[in-house]
Amino acid sequence: LPARVTLAHGGGGSAMRDLIDGVFRAAFADDGALPAAEDQARFDLAALAAKGDRLAFTTDGFVVDPLFFPGGDIGTLAVCGTINDLAVGGAVPVALSCAAIVEEGLPVEVLRRVAASMAQAARAAGVPIATGDTKVVARGACDKLFVTTTGIGVVRAGLDIGIDKARPGDVILVNGLLGDHGAAILNARGDLALETAIESDCAALDGLVAALIASAPGIRMMRDATRGGVAAVLNELAEASRVGVSVRELDLPIRPEVTGFCEILGLDPLYLANEGKLVAVVPAEEADAALAALRAHPLGRGAAAIGRVSDGRPGRVVMETRFGGARVVDMLVGDQLPRIC
Amino acid sequence: LPARVTLAHGGGGSAMRDLIDGVFRAAFADDGALPAAEDQARFDLAALAAKGDRLAFTTDGFVVDPLFFPGGDIGTLAVCGTINDLAVGGAVPVALSCAAIVEEGLPVEVLRRVAASMAQAARAAGVPIATGDTKVVARGACDKLFVTTTGIGVVRAGLDIGIDKARPGDVILVNGLLGDHGAAILNARGDLALETAIESDCAALDGLVAALIASAPGIRMMRDATRGGVAAVLNELAEASRVGVSVRELDLPIRPEVTGFCEILGLDPLYLANEGKLVAVVPAEEADAALAALRAHPLGRGAAAIGRVSDGRPGRVVMETRFGGARVVDMLVGDQLPRIC
Ligand SMILES: Nc1ncnc2c1ncn2[C@@H]1O[C@H](COP(=O)(O)OP(=O)(O)OP(=O)(O)O)[C@@H](O)[C@H]1O
Ligand SMILES: Nc1ncnc2c1ncn2[C@@H]1O[C@H](COP(=O)(O)OP(=O)(O)OP(=O)(O)O)[C@@H](O)[C@H]1O
Ligand SMILES: [Mg+2]
Ligand SMILES: [Mg+2]
Ligand SMILES: [Mg+2]
Ligand SMILES: [Mg+2]
Ligand SMILES: [Mg+2]
Ligand SMILES: [Mg+2]
Repeated sequence: LPARVTLAHGGGGSAMRDLIDGVFRAAFADDGALPAAEDQARFDLAALAAKGDRLAFTTDGFVVDPLFFPGGDIGTLAVCGTINDLAVGGAVPVALSCAAIVEEGLPVEVLRRVAASMAQAARAAGVPIATGDTKVVARGACDKLFVTTTGIGVVRAGLDIGIDKARPGDVILVNGLLGDHGAAILNARGDLALETAIESDCAALDGLVAALIASAPGIRMMRDATRGGVAAVLNELAEASRVGVSVRELDLPIRPEVTGFCEILGLDPLYLANEGKLVAVVPAEEADAALAALRAHPLGRGAAAIGRVSDGRPGRVVMETRFGGARVVDMLVGDQLPRIC
Repeated sequence: LPARVTLAHGGGGSAMRDLIDGVFRAAFADDGALPAAEDQARFDLAALAAKGDRLAFTTDGFVVDPLFFPGGDIGTLAVCGTINDLAVGGAVPVALSCAAIVEEGLPVEVLRRVAASMAQAARAAGVPIATGDTKVVARGACDKLFVTTTGIGVVRAGLDIGIDKARPGDVILVNGLLGDHGAAILNARGDLALETAIESDCAALDGLVAALIASAPGIRMMRDATRGGVAAVLNELAEASRVGVSVRELDLPIRPEVTGFCEILGLDPLYLANEGKLVAVVPAEEADAALAALRAHPLGRGAAAIGRVSDGRPGRVVMETRFGGARVVDMLVGDQLPRIC
């Protein structure tokens, strides 16, 4: 392969095949799931039905800038993000697709590193990258690289969760420190030269979710707190479930560096994107077991109960501040941070 | 909604939700498949298993320039292209996802037109767009709009087709005029001011494929001839099946305008992209029935037998020219036409 991607690598001819074979297949192939010369992966339906009763299907595009950052890169993000969207819906992930849009001139080595990260994250989760696509656009027509992953999974039989299922009295949990991903990306962009590099929390949560569901079978809903942060999830669940939500600022697990960072930039950590954090709502009587299960998992050591579902005004999220006051936490209106994921 | 897309429309907050609800959900929603507030579509596995024995999974990114062209737009392309990838693998399409990457400043009206085209194409094929994602990047970070669709489908029980299954003596069919899509895009770009606007052949081939399979149960393989054209498919099948392939130039159905167009630009119509044309290989004894079935379908009226699988040198595609000579048809090496799909 040449040092840089050329338009020929998207042309449908042998140069394209060389790039796909040399970069993507080479990275993904030992999963054994990429069929040799077909453009569709196939899965035995009887084997899928043995895992649960419904097929789950979800997609996300990734346009993060920069491509590489402390704690991950666009590849880890693309794999973990879609695994998480499957997991928080109660599905066991089965496979992913990878559609890359590449800017002419991108070093092939960059593509290799991203493909290696994708392969590594996928393998760690035991989820093959089973099919894909590669387009190349002229210099200037896209910024370096965009990756869209789509995931299929199987929802556990009988599991009935949803963002509309929260009930007054339920407890709201998170699995650890909030805002690290957003802060890591901003810091990596050099918007603020911090001494300490904050690492993204990017991680695949399917294992943690399995432990959580096992410990709290009455669980109401889960949602990963990506763009829009925890504030977006809380507002969505308050609205969809027609309940009030109250959280305590003092209970929010946030790194002092992130708090400091946000103060300087005038940001609110509740709106910062996370890529390995979920919000879960569980019935009060299952909260202790759920919290213990989260804390027993490597990705949930910093888990915390951050608030309660209330019979307050439906759709409204209220935070009890550290000074004892109360303020409404609205959904973010505009854009805090473009290209955060 | 404002007249143009802003970065806030990708921010994860309420502006984003307004855009998704106002544009994508508004267009797709009456399919009844977009779940209200979840980020994953769900399908009953028992119902899927009733349609066939294997789940098919395939993805394609679309970066066509211009977004709108005679015969279709990026939306029709994105829906038909992925339906075709499912269909040519023998699958009945079940659902699609839609991941859009939008450039800041794009008129919302453009997004609406594209979403309407997607909805229309999906509805015509009876395939819901069941989940999606929307990212916005700053002006200059992508060229207007890219759309990635992923499809799931169910492969007909027992059907055993593949690009490695062609046998000497088999007949090679196409379902109509070749090269229209590539010519339409080039013409729409104004690379050549032709008097007649050539229309893209963009179409969903799932119905045609169903008729073809019913008429030729011994069918070996099908492949839609997109980037790289018919030449790419013939080379791939010759290589994967370890057979020779011979085609007759006089049997290739090509519009005189497209032939003329190609002569002027020094292009070969065999390498031009199609978006509603497939190459099928059937056993000789099923060729007549297959051809009749194709011709009886609105999308196969111009179907033709273009050649044979031979015991010639494995992997080599030979064309008998209109002058009675023979020339090797190689796989395209470089890129004939960037951003054709
Ligand atoms: N980035 C990628 N990661 C993994 N597999 C890929 C990637 N890009 C392409 N592939 C695989 O390479 C093969 C060829 O893909 P290609 O896109 O040429 O097929 P196609 O979708 O039929 O054509 P087109 O995209 O022109 O419609 C397929 O098996 C596809 O799954
Ligand atoms: N272009 C689109 N077409 C159809 N549905 C869409 C589109 N964009 C978003 N959606 C739907 O809107 C809802 C919200 O999507 P969103 O991307 O915010 O969720 P998410 O994937 O959990 O978040 P993130 O993308 O930040 O990880 C989902 O139900 C999604 O399927
Ligand atoms: Mg998603
Ligand atoms: Mg997501
Ligand atoms: Mg493709
Ligand atoms: Mg494809
Ligand atoms: Mg395709
Ligand atoms: Mg999304």
